[in-house]
Amino acid sequence: MRVLENIIYDELQNNDYATFTKTLSEESLILFAASSEHITLTGLDPDAIRNSVYRKDIGYGMWASSLISNAFSKVMPGPGSIYLEQDLSFSLPVKLGDTLTVKLTVKEKLEHNRVIFLCDVKNQEGDTVVTGEAIVIAPSEKISLEQDTLPKVCIHTNNDD
Amino acid sequence: MRVLENIIYDELQNNDYATFTKTLSEESLILFAASSEHITLTGLDPDAIRNSVYRKDIGYGMWASSLISNAFSKVMPGPGSIYLEQDLSFSLPVKLGDTLTVKLTVKEKLEHNRVIFLCDVKNQEGDTVVTGEAIVIAPSEKISLEQDTLPKVCIHTNNDD
Repeated sequence: MRVLENIIYDELQNNDYATFTKTLSEESLILFAASSEHITLTGLDPDAIRNSVYRKDIGYGMWASSLISNAFSKVMPGPGSIYLEQDLSFSLPVKLGDTLTVKLTVKEKLEHNRVIFLCDVKNQEGDTVVTGEAIVIAPSEKISLEQDTLPKVCIHTNNDD
Repeated sequence: MRVLENIIYDELQNNDYATFTKTLSEESLILFAASSEHITLTGLDPDAIRNSVYRKDIGYGMWASSLISNAFSKVMPGPGSIYLEQDLSFSLPVKLGDTLTVKLTVKEKLEHNRVIFLCDVKNQEGDTVVTGEAIVIAPSEKISLEQDTLPKVCIHTNNDD
């Protein structure tokens, strides 16, 4: 069982960074869509997804952004962090199958445990797809947390094709 | 089958607004977590979720934000929109069971089909949980789209309790 350990405010230094990588699989996309009733999909047919008007859909950018908050909550500063602000600029479309790497870099430490982070999300070609800055309250106390596995999720197709 | 019809740039007027409402159910949260490997959950036990350090988790705020992009892609301007920028301020924690209503309001129409929207997400008590502004390229051509149903998604617990 993996243990999540946070990085407290006092430990963070300017230019410290952390990364988190994940591929936008069909499964990820469908679960994201189901979670927020987000994207219209024609079954699980990859061609249909690729050719739909959603191929440059707004939702793909927000999925990429969810990786940023994931990195904050799990990697840096990790458990106990509180999100205050996030600005996002969607530079390039995110495509199904893209492998995205989020990089969070400490830009500036402010008073009251607040930290400004640079957030950069690149695809497998090294091109930035989402970029922005965030303000997060970093935890003041050390937390170690056993990371439980998620419940198993499955996807059924009801389509004939 | 529901039909999604977009609102093109020429049809949008200042102060036009649209809303979209959804409840943060355990199922939504688990699917969101599974999509981006987001939140550590201890099975499906609601008490465990409520009592975990994640109860004010960063991920809840980003789930709320995903409703904003959902509203852009489905409601206003709808299909064919392109997300350029979004800033987010997380004012209050989002809690499991909260029913959130996103309101998108046209603030200003810019050149080249760009539109500035005010984005406000309120909980069932009328308190703002997430707020911000977005810049979206509104579509120039009318699109009507049959909204297919998502593949069926199910969740299995592997826990004994």
